[in-house]
Amino acid sequence: MEWESRYSERARGMKASEIRELLRLTQQPDIISFAGGLPSPESFPTVDIAEVTTHIMLTAAEEALQYGTTEGYNRLREYCAYWSKKEGIEATMDNVVITSGSQQGLDIVSKILLDPNDVVIVEAPSYLGGLGAIRAYQASFTAVKMDDEGLMMDQLEDTIKKMNHPPKLVYTVPTFQNPAGVTMIEKRRKKLVDLAHDYDFVIMEDNPYGDLRYSGDPVKAIKAFDDEGRVIYTSTFSKIFSPGMRLAWIIGHETFIRKFVIAKQSTDLCTNSFVQRILYEYCRRDLIENHINKIREIYREKRDVMLESLEEYFPEGCSWTRPDGGLFLWARVPEYIDTKVMIGEAIKERVAYVHGAAFFVDGSGTNTMRLCFSYASNEKIREGIKRLGRVIEKEIKAHKA
Amino acid sequence: MEWESRYSERARGMKASEIRELLRLTQQPDIISFAGGLPSPESFPTVDIAEVTTHIMLTAAEEALQYGTTEGYNRLREYCAYWSKKEGIEATMDNVVITSGSQQGLDIVSKILLDPNDVVIVEAPSYLGGLGAIRAYQASFTAVKMDDEGLMMDQLEDTIKKMNHPPKLVYTVPTFQNPAGVTMIEKRRKKLVDLAHDYDFVIMEDNPYGDLRYSGDPVKAIKAFDDEGRVIYTSTFSKIFSPGMRLAWIIGHETFIRKFVIAKQSTDLCTNSFVQRILYEYCRRDLIENHINKIREIYREKRDVMLESLEEYFPEGCSWTRPDGGLFLWARVPEYIDTKVMIGEAIKERVAYVHGAAFFVDGSGTNTMRLCFSYASNEKIREGIKRLGRVIEKEIKAHKA
Repeated sequence: MEWESRYSERARGMKASEIRELLRLTQQPDIISFAGGLPSPESFPTVDIAEVTTHIMLTAAEEALQYGTTEGYNRLREYCAYWSKKEGIEATMDNVVITSGSQQGLDIVSKILLDPNDVVIVEAPSYLGGLGAIRAYQASFTAVKMDDEGLMMDQLEDTIKKMNHPPKLVYTVPTFQNPAGVTMIEKRRKKLVDLAHDYDFVIMEDNPYGDLRYSGDPVKAIKAFDDEGRVIYTSTFSKIFSPGMRLAWIIGHETFIRKFVIAKQSTDLCTNSFVQRILYEYCRRDLIENHINKIREIYREKRDVMLESLEEYFPEGCSWTRPDGGLFLWARVPEYIDTKVMIGEAIKERVAYVHGAAFFVDGSGTNTMRLCFSYASNEKIREGIKRLGRVIEKEIKAHKA
Repeated sequence: MEWESRYSERARGMKASEIRELLRLTQQPDIISFAGGLPSPESFPTVDIAEVTTHIMLTAAEEALQYGTTEGYNRLREYCAYWSKKEGIEATMDNVVITSGSQQGLDIVSKILLDPNDVVIVEAPSYLGGLGAIRAYQASFTAVKMDDEGLMMDQLEDTIKKMNHPPKLVYTVPTFQNPAGVTMIEKRRKKLVDLAHDYDFVIMEDNPYGDLRYSGDPVKAIKAFDDEGRVIYTSTFSKIFSPGMRLAWIIGHETFIRKFVIAKQSTDLCTNSFVQRILYEYCRRDLIENHINKIREIYREKRDVMLESLEEYFPEGCSWTRPDGGLFLWARVPEYIDTKVMIGEAIKERVAYVHGAAFFVDGSGTNTMRLCFSYASNEKIREGIKRLGRVIEKEIKAHKA
């Protein structure tokens, strides 16, 4: 029986991600991988989770093991509204839905907003999971550049002015961006909200790393400047608690949230009740604040080790971002080097990264790469950057020869 | 800001389910509810889950709390292939994906197969969650009747013959159907596979209750008769372990499964790693077989109590199915009674059901109702059916007056 011809239009466009294959390759134990975007396993609160789970099974098993409401566990929804206050967001439980990872939020937002050929403006480079969710509903992308202060507002406005219709959505990861590691400054956040008003589009703000700041001053969420309910905000417990638990939340205008809940119901009925109770109990005991402080220390050190190693081992002609938080930094090698081609050489030296072009919708960025500093140990970061420096040096020499 | 005009075409058709509102209403503690489809809380293995979770946190926390592969935890995939053998299904790990509830399987299958206006044949009545998943991708429904032996194959073939194009998909819950409680006999299962071959459509077999048989002889899955890879099969741990854990699996042809995995990646990256490990450990310790035996005893008794109570308390002119398993039975009252209207009276008597018309895509079944026997205690089942009998009697008297 032949399958290809019976897929939906949207499914025909779905291809296996090359990154997925790369990540599989880099799982070999002797490869030092800066490719994945994994939190450090040191960062998981295993003993507390065992303790809290036993408590839940003794006190609230009936509810924790039963179907829950599509909106999520009310106490956790309240907690997420409270938690988002430090980003400057005013929200109540009614603005919040608990999702199965932010990825589910991105999927459902795309599902309810995007018709085929609607235009979504994305950052260049942008988060692959976001692009994947949007692409699945056959929207088309227009990319706008970033600099060290985030998405460039003058370029954004120029782009919109040239379009026949304003975009349906602007998708941004404004803080410690994946992959570039840069943070949008406050002035641009305000400007983005103004542009959304002027040109009547919706902003999807994806903030998985906001709590992972290691230096610099906090910036409010874009959602904090939104007085019309135009910004849909999502954040996650994946990087501050556990990605395996698949717990995130979305915040939006109540009208939008009602539609979101209806759409979510047909995708999975409800988010896991068991882990929602575990997480809430963990938060209720005030364990999460201390835990985040601990993670921040671990990641700050890893970031610094990577930055020092880059200084020491990367040859002249390379540059990189100096992120104040998150998991990633973004490196640039001389223009004549194609980092996608260079991966083969890197793997030979048992080190891995993701080539930057993968994060651009237009195939640019061929001399860039994403380096994840959160997963490898400090020793491995040093050794891995040393090896990668050697690989780049070889490419430079070969070019000059 | 106005939202309605910016929703996608597919989202404009999404309406809040009336059932959802009904279920909310019936959660008042003094109402005896046969409305929801909830497993009995007595059926949850709480102590074992606490024990197993602690074990996982001590031995495999790194993997259990980290992102997993989109396909799911390999050992659990293998276990699901093994588990499906008793349904007559030959599958390996490569045919299996772990999903976040069967609902996610239904959503993703619809996402990758259905274009707007594709025709999906469904049972009359049919499972609401299945209808919701399909409707979200703008397919159109054609309903075919069931009798006590399941979907009627002669009617199915007649329907297909009259169509301009064959259907893309036939969606069926063949065993202890939700809502009707009937089971498709083996002869019809074979015939359905033959029809799928002759008219070149795909079968979506949804089997959430297969392990919950209380009487009668087992019937093989439809998938067991499929030698072309035309049947997509899904089953779940919701009714035999815990619905709150959101763990189910899908089985399909390897080509199809590859596409499914790509689509799943953009909807949620991966299924919860933590609960996959917990469930696998629970199964590895052979706890699940005993647990199912225990649940079967509980539910068999509840079913029998409901059947006896119906005999005793329902007035003449009513009839009902006698399911060999599952959670539901289906009752019919005299034709002049509209069970949707009657709900108001039932709620006054503090008893609830779901009116049958909700499960039909064409508004028929106005004198039918779904009764869930798995959730209420034996005493409450007796009392609830007594009350409901009284409500029906009153309607009959009012009609005759």
